[in-house]
Amino acid sequence: METILRFKKDELMDFVIRYMTKLGVPEEDAKIVGNVLICADIRGVDSHGLIRLGSYYGNRISKGYIDPKTPYKIVSETPTTALIDGGNGCGQVVSHKAMKLCIQKAKASGLAAITVNNSNHYGIAGYYSMMALEHDMIGLSLTNSQPLVAPTYGKTAILGTNPISVAVPSYSRYPYVLDMATSAVAYGKIQLYEKKKEHIPIGWGVDEDGNVTNDPSKIKPGGHGALLPLGGMEITAGYKGYGLALLVEILCSTLSGGKFLTNVGGPAKPEPTAVSHFFMAVNIEAFRPLIDFKKQMDDMIGLLKTSPLAVGREEILVAGEKEFAYAEFNEEHGVPLIKPIVEELRSDGNKIGVPFDIHPIQEE
Amino acid sequence: METILRFKKDELMDFVIRYMTKLGVPEEDAKIVGNVLICADIRGVDSHGLIRLGSYYGNRISKGYIDPKTPYKIVSETPTTALIDGGNGCGQVVSHKAMKLCIQKAKASGLAAITVNNSNHYGIAGYYSMMALEHDMIGLSLTNSQPLVAPTYGKTAILGTNPISVAVPSYSRYPYVLDMATSAVAYGKIQLYEKKKEHIPIGWGVDEDGNVTNDPSKIKPGGHGALLPLGGMEITAGYKGYGLALLVEILCSTLSGGKFLTNVGGPAKPEPTAVSHFFMAVNIEAFRPLIDFKKQMDDMIGLLKTSPLAVGREEILVAGEKEFAYAEFNEEHGVPLIKPIVEELRSDGNKIGVPFDIHPIQEE
Repeated sequence: METILRFKKDELMDFVIRYMTKLGVPEEDAKIVGNVLICADIRGVDSHGLIRLGSYYGNRISKGYIDPKTPYKIVSETPTTALIDGGNGCGQVVSHKAMKLCIQKAKASGLAAITVNNSNHYGIAGYYSMMALEHDMIGLSLTNSQPLVAPTYGKTAILGTNPISVAVPSYSRYPYVLDMATSAVAYGKIQLYEKKKEHIPIGWGVDEDGNVTNDPSKIKPGGHGALLPLGGMEITAGYKGYGLALLVEILCSTLSGGKFLTNVGGPAKPEPTAVSHFFMAVNIEAFRPLIDFKKQMDDMIGLLKTSPLAVGREEILVAGEKEFAYAEFNEEHGVPLIKPIVEELRSDGNKIGVPFDIHPIQEE
Repeated sequence: METILRFKKDELMDFVIRYMTKLGVPEEDAKIVGNVLICADIRGVDSHGLIRLGSYYGNRISKGYIDPKTPYKIVSETPTTALIDGGNGCGQVVSHKAMKLCIQKAKASGLAAITVNNSNHYGIAGYYSMMALEHDMIGLSLTNSQPLVAPTYGKTAILGTNPISVAVPSYSRYPYVLDMATSAVAYGKIQLYEKKKEHIPIGWGVDEDGNVTNDPSKIKPGGHGALLPLGGMEITAGYKGYGLALLVEILCSTLSGGKFLTNVGGPAKPEPTAVSHFFMAVNIEAFRPLIDFKKQMDDMIGLLKTSPLAVGREEILVAGEKEFAYAEFNEEHGVPLIKPIVEELRSDGNKIGVPFDIHPIQEE
């Protein structure tokens, strides 16, 4: 097991702000980036947390691939919609503004949707859908991303892992928060199996010929092979996951006029990524009294959680439940970071003269 | 191979109208039901076509489980939203009205969403999403349905196969039309394997203990075992399909105040099914010029279709493409029905004194 160091959230946030502002990001924007990244670590989505601060954002801002000022602008707007040019800035900053605007519009109009082009990686999709929860609305957040996934009958990476996140408030239960890639698994999971020299399950990816494989080393999107969409092969309905990935692509890039499919960049490409996002907010009160809706959410979740368990299982979970429970623990005990990430934050900070001079409150 | 009889669409429609009006369905409503059912047969979704005319709709109207007059009413309404009580009528009738209203609202407001409770089976989800195409809009159609699917870690049928359909116009290509159940497969497919005495692939369903099984006879939702959500088992991300099925459930039943999960009825239950639906229309012009959007759809589809093929495959398809090509053929050559369905239509008609006195234009 890796050593886990726990830090006070405020102290980590302070470091992120010092680090990002040193790179030219305005303080208010740096706070947004920090909130999104730390939220990922708190919810247990380490792959999208502070691990990316230097390696992705810091690195790409330094090289000029991301504009630290995020000079986004609203290209077109109606009371229920907007199209925003992300100004090749920090994805978190324009996405936070877009979702705020979406919520504001939905408050007045019942529904609102905003699409964003010319942006960059925005962190966890769930951060923005969950922004709707504080306003007792349903939130939706989608983004396209660098090509990693093969379409059904294809053999190369054409689609991103294009996540879908939807957040729905409840009364006394945890909210429903779906936050899923439309690929069967994340690429990181395949790399982990390769490192452990283990076979991967059938349905995760295809080799250079487009044949399903249990050998993780045969799946190197961009080089050879690719991830499979949710559902895996055709016989287990992988074309549905492919259809969903394409839906995300359409609402993000086609609706915004952004770059699509293999034209979307990733961390390896020395140029702006031109990622697109899509956000939506639904004002529940426009349909029925909020309290009735929230109580029915509780009843529905209750029915699910008391339904018969498979042999050997302990609990039926609802999307987001595990993450909320984990986040509650971490809010109390400190944000968990594995040692190599802390070392990286320290070294990234030193590189630009921003010392990581904070101390863990606990070591596990 | 089963004998296929091809009929003129107009003549089939005429029979449906005579049959439904005899049961007390107003003529205009009977036309809607006919259009939805025949559309399914034309697109190759036989399971949702005329096979259901007598066995489902006729049977349930005769027994008083469906109100043939579909006395729907709008419970609440704003310029962008509505909640409709389906009046326990024909699902097709209220859904057609709801989607029409949705499109009308989106024309004026950019976006619109309508949720419907107290309804019945509405046929193929794609019929309603595709209504948006004639108006150059994006359409969405969702419905909950009788319990057939186990949640991850469960072992009984709690969720419906809760389909998602989205239709998006393009310029010169077929539109993108996703129309997918959120289960790995339809129950009918498992029954087919049982009939052929073949094993089913791992990931389609679980037995009475909640263990994944390759024996189709062990999957009898409502009795023992259940279908698995898209993604199959946990290791292949079945919890994502489960999360999507629950999302459909929330937007249909929780947002409308309708019955949910195991409280939703099916053909076997001698009572109204209390199914709920959800519709949405997105006016593309509210975001960007329609022509630009449609041409970018073409470009994106073109990129997909010219991307590298897996060994042994002939073509990469886009959602809906196969169905559009099949429908074009059938529009020209006649609506295909297998002989047993024709026999059933004849016998169902005879039962209520509506002779199926039309003749196939071709037999294959």
